[in-house]
Amino acid sequence: MIASDDRGFTLGDGLFETVLADAGALQHFDAHLDRMTAGAAVLGLPAPNRAAAAAAMRRALTEAGLTDVRAAVRLTFTAGPGGRGLDRPQTLRPLLVATAAAAPKPAGPARLMVSAVRRNERSPAAGLKTLAYLDNVLARREAGAAGADEALMLNTKGQLACAAAANLFWVAGERLVTPALGCGALPGITRARVIAAARARAIAVEEAAAGPEMLASAAAIFLTNSLIGLRPVSGIDDFAAGQSRITDLLAADLESN
Amino acid sequence: MIASDDRGFTLGDGLFETVLADAGALQHFDAHLDRMTAGAAVLGLPAPNRAAAAAAMRRALTEAGLTDVRAAVRLTFTAGPGGRGLDRPQTLRPLLVATAAAAPKPAGPARLMVSAVRRNERSPAAGLKTLAYLDNVLARREAGAAGADEALMLNTKGQLACAAAANLFWVAGERLVTPALGCGALPGITRARVIAAARARAIAVEEAAAGPEMLASAAAIFLTNSLIGLRPVSGIDDFAAGQSRITDLLAADLESN
Repeated sequence: MIASDDRGFTLGDGLFETVLADAGALQHFDAHLDRMTAGAAVLGLPAPNRAAAAAAMRRALTEAGLTDVRAAVRLTFTAGPGGRGLDRPQTLRPLLVATAAAAPKPAGPARLMVSAVRRNERSPAAGLKTLAYLDNVLARREAGAAGADEALMLNTKGQLACAAAANLFWVAGERLVTPALGCGALPGITRARVIAAARARAIAVEEAAAGPEMLASAAAIFLTNSLIGLRPVSGIDDFAAGQSRITDLLAADLESN
Repeated sequence: MIASDDRGFTLGDGLFETVLADAGALQHFDAHLDRMTAGAAVLGLPAPNRAAAAAAMRRALTEAGLTDVRAAVRLTFTAGPGGRGLDRPQTLRPLLVATAAAAPKPAGPARLMVSAVRRNERSPAAGLKTLAYLDNVLARREAGAAGADEALMLNTKGQLACAAAANLFWVAGERLVTPALGCGALPGITRARVIAAARARAIAVEEAAAGPEMLASAAAIFLTNSLIGLRPVSGIDDFAAGQSRITDLLAADLESN
């Protein structure tokens, strides 16, 4: 239970990470905590305690009876209770809390729609996984209402940013392309793993400021996040996306490390 | 206490109102609930129950021992618990919760700074008082670090939008000007009251898309919200703002109704 004056609840003043647990083992725990620590610095919060985070996440898995399956463990870190209005209290008492839920891998490729909700690449929070995630909720709702699986979000300049809950990649010729972080993309843990896997295969990777028209000429498109790993995209709005052996190679690389 | 899977806490999926209570009497309760109801429709949530909201707010005032003073009552309305990731559960169980705190009126005029945090006028949430308020928290932190009282926020086009926790007005000649709602301003309850008071005095009111340079030639600048009422601005960054009898007239009008 959370205090009703916790600033995570009242103002979205905090961060989260969603970590894949495979039969109780937290995948890429250090990378997730590194990202949360960097985000905390931007928000002016102390670093989350890693030992406390790991203990809370393991306890959440055990209490939910999910230590033997594929599960999503969510870690939430907030500025804690109190303060008047927007201003934080003099003495911060940050809150660290973990919950766990079953996380079956989605079946088949994702169909996207381009959302009308624009990502604010000018916010210091744009590159952070903050509790102020309502724009992403609204983009996903819009996609669901249109019968799509995920929303593709452009930034305020009309450039490709990300999906509502995933990073975006496409294959252009023999190159792999993904929106640059400055375009409002989240620095995804799986995004970084895919970039590393591509470079290990001597596939050129470009982090680009690009408009959505670039996707029409892409050989293939896919999404990444910690829970889905790599998920191919079957199409965007009325456009059917193609396939590329590069997608299959990188998906196999992700599975094997 | 709030459930740790409440979507208000996990994703900012909800709304709030801050209502002034004067010796136990909730000021402009209907206007606040009208705004929350309109916001709920945009978010795809049912309308908050007015009787339940009023009862929760009165209970919060009583429990905090604030029925005889000037107090801020915060009403929070969320999409409730559950769902997987961004997606809401099939059956919504919205949460309505109220808290109360003492709210002394700030002394003297406010000094502003222009924040680097841009308001996303392209978000459907821009005109709503949502729980995803982190950008405003960050703007206010920036202002506080610079020794200012409040942050002035521009939108992504560089137009004046609002302050972090207030609407903005300025006096231009004999006209009253305020950023248009389409620029990312919140449809403030006090903003509407000030506009009505000005028109009742036959003062022309313009809702404008304007750059911050317009403030340099303003006769006077002030902020409004439900807790502060009307608060004059003494200056912005290195610029000292002037005074106008229009500010005094409108402040008196607000106090008297």
